[in-house]
Amino acid sequence: MDNKFTYIDGGICAAKGFKASGTYCGIKRPANDTPGVKHKNDICLFVSDVVCNTAAVYTQNKVKGAPIIVTKDNLEKSDNKAIAVIANSKNANTCNADGVEKAKRMCELVANELNIPQEQVVVASTGVIGLTLPIEPVEKAVPILVNGLEYGKNEEAATAIMTTDTVKKEYAVEFEIDGFTCHLGGMAKGSGMIHPNMATTLNFITTDCAVSSKMLQKALSEIVKVTYNCLSIDGDTSTNDMVSLMANGLAGNKEITDECESFEIFKSALYEVMANLTRMLAKDGEGATKLVMCEVSGAKDKETAIICAKSVICSPLVKTAMFGADANCGRIMGALGYSGADIDPLKIDVSYQSVSGSVDVCKGGYVVDFNEEKAKKILLDDEITIKVNLNEGNCGITAYGCDLTYDYVKINGDYRT
Amino acid sequence: MDNKFTYIDGGICAAKGFKASGTYCGIKRPANDTPGVKHKNDICLFVSDVVCNTAAVYTQNKVKGAPIIVTKDNLEKSDNKAIAVIANSKNANTCNADGVEKAKRMCELVANELNIPQEQVVVASTGVIGLTLPIEPVEKAVPILVNGLEYGKNEEAATAIMTTDTVKKEYAVEFEIDGFTCHLGGMAKGSGMIHPNMATTLNFITTDCAVSSKMLQKALSEIVKVTYNCLSIDGDTSTNDMVSLMANGLAGNKEITDECESFEIFKSALYEVMANLTRMLAKDGEGATKLVMCEVSGAKDKETAIICAKSVICSPLVKTAMFGADANCGRIMGALGYSGADIDPLKIDVSYQSVSGSVDVCKGGYVVDFNEEKAKKILLDDEITIKVNLNEGNCGITAYGCDLTYDYVKINGDYRT
Repeated sequence: MDNKFTYIDGGICAAKGFKASGTYCGIKRPANDTPGVKHKNDICLFVSDVVCNTAAVYTQNKVKGAPIIVTKDNLEKSDNKAIAVIANSKNANTCNADGVEKAKRMCELVANELNIPQEQVVVASTGVIGLTLPIEPVEKAVPILVNGLEYGKNEEAATAIMTTDTVKKEYAVEFEIDGFTCHLGGMAKGSGMIHPNMATTLNFITTDCAVSSKMLQKALSEIVKVTYNCLSIDGDTSTNDMVSLMANGLAGNKEITDECESFEIFKSALYEVMANLTRMLAKDGEGATKLVMCEVSGAKDKETAIICAKSVICSPLVKTAMFGADANCGRIMGALGYSGADIDPLKIDVSYQSVSGSVDVCKGGYVVDFNEEKAKKILLDDEITIKVNLNEGNCGITAYGCDLTYDYVKINGDYRT
Repeated sequence: MDNKFTYIDGGICAAKGFKASGTYCGIKRPANDTPGVKHKNDICLFVSDVVCNTAAVYTQNKVKGAPIIVTKDNLEKSDNKAIAVIANSKNANTCNADGVEKAKRMCELVANELNIPQEQVVVASTGVIGLTLPIEPVEKAVPILVNGLEYGKNEEAATAIMTTDTVKKEYAVEFEIDGFTCHLGGMAKGSGMIHPNMATTLNFITTDCAVSSKMLQKALSEIVKVTYNCLSIDGDTSTNDMVSLMANGLAGNKEITDECESFEIFKSALYEVMANLTRMLAKDGEGATKLVMCEVSGAKDKETAIICAKSVICSPLVKTAMFGADANCGRIMGALGYSGADIDPLKIDVSYQSVSGSVDVCKGGYVVDFNEEKAKKILLDDEITIKVNLNEGNCGITAYGCDLTYDYVKINGDYRT
């Protein structure tokens, strides 16, 4: 899609009427265990000045985090209206016997403090699975969070949802609908256990554009397929994936209620934000040293393009080759071959591309003589595109991933401790 | 299945009438490039004294190595009869424009030297994909290989098919059918790019038991499902996977032509050899420090058991946790949940087991309090079983894998060079 949007600061607070706050409450360990140490935020809240039409997509993992169950239930009860979102890191509140009870309690605490209906609260958790969530720190934190709510405090929230993330992920754009200036922004968390299926890791998006709940859900479901669902860090689909999209309508435009031109503009803005957050998530994959994209073109249909592109970026052998800057295109052909897609190997062209240039490595299914030095130079860059032309049609897609490194092993060999 | 077989030495030469030989011919680099250095074997041949009924299964990767195409074609033409097998390492002869021509030439060279029909030769290659196979070294090697053929030289062949393997893999058993002593043995190669689908990496099995081609294929297809196809090192399905099974009938038993009791004994022997080779492959996975098995029980059907067990052993997060001896059972629950199997998370029990004992970590889908020290002790062993009870039926399976380590990344970041 065309880039006809202005990038702006502000993340989830870029849209009018959204306040945020974040704090450290000590979910993983007592707040006072290491005196003098400033802990990173582990819980955040953001709130709209008015009720929002809300859409959400959730993990397809059959093992679902308790917050997923509770949020889904809340939005059903509230007819897809929400005002506030509370999210914590360090504990996923999943596979716990008292998980649902605790997740509901989090919503109740927020609802009471803000004096809003409990079912208009979205709750999300990320972190270690199978650890009992201590509720006392949350009980203490909620009044502090409510008290700290401010416009423009998006960063406090964005840092509170980080786990093994090395950078916060925020993106926002400004666009125009019917002469009204609209804003749409979001924040994302995630670094490992990322292989989204219908949704991904925690992602929160807000907008002041007026859009009906139905059209919001339509836009979100469509765009998630070509952004987050084309992302894989390690092939592991999380139990707590969720994307929520809240629209409070404060921009003043006439509410979008069908597939009009305004809806297309809105979807483009949503794509812009979600695609950029997806890139950020991929680049900050656990242990990653580079962003690896696979751009598939010439597919007979979109589904084939997605299957092929994801198979390439998920292959551990491709990922380690990218880490080693090894132009081993046999591994790319191998990954395309076992993808399950109905493709003709003898039509496939493959090339590598980066800011340093581009080099063809495979033509019609056969590896060609190529300049190894040039390929090495390209693969040493920190953003690489593996271009695959299936030469069978006109559909295409880009999938986002990263390399597989020593540090991925290090981070995950010892995550809980 | 019961262990009613006697383990014997001899690998592919354990069965009567099979001779083997191996040599170094310099496929990857000129033989004389490093004077004084003794290179490892890179090509081997084994031959039966009489024509064999033969069965084979091949990779389901759509990108197939040229040797796969040629072997399949040969066995079709020969009505599943074979006498000789030639196999090389260091070059997969895949994604090469002249691949089929070269693979055929390998068969022709063997056929001419042994004075047998060309279509009774099985050819297999393993190694780097997309490198032109130099045929001159093979032309020089074939007379040497034929000249060197001897009973009991199985080790020379078993070492010739090694790539990143750190140990050769051979297994053989003796069993009795109708009072006749039969032998069945095999060798396998493989360490990375292992995620078999209907077949796996190079595996050659020989027997002197008399079995019709039809029943051989039936036995092989059945046993491969519960052995090699339950193995994953890295989730990458190779382009050159193949298992061949040759029976020369020299044991003297009446040929097995239907599903009689003898067929069951034969299948048990085949399972014994293939399951042990599978364990060896898993334990020697690239960079692996330990064998990780997932034993799923209580599944409503075998397919569900296989999907669940493979999802657990394929999960990079489970694999890194095993490397770190971290009893992070949330990752196991996560992998079961995204496996795609139709299961009820709230019925799942999980425990860890090794020679050091066993510890329950999850009951009815919820993580339980467990002795972390005991779990650590178990997970520090070099053979670990993750036991998963789905509590929904009576079917079970064991899948074989290994941990994901720094060395996997190291080996594969720099494989071609």
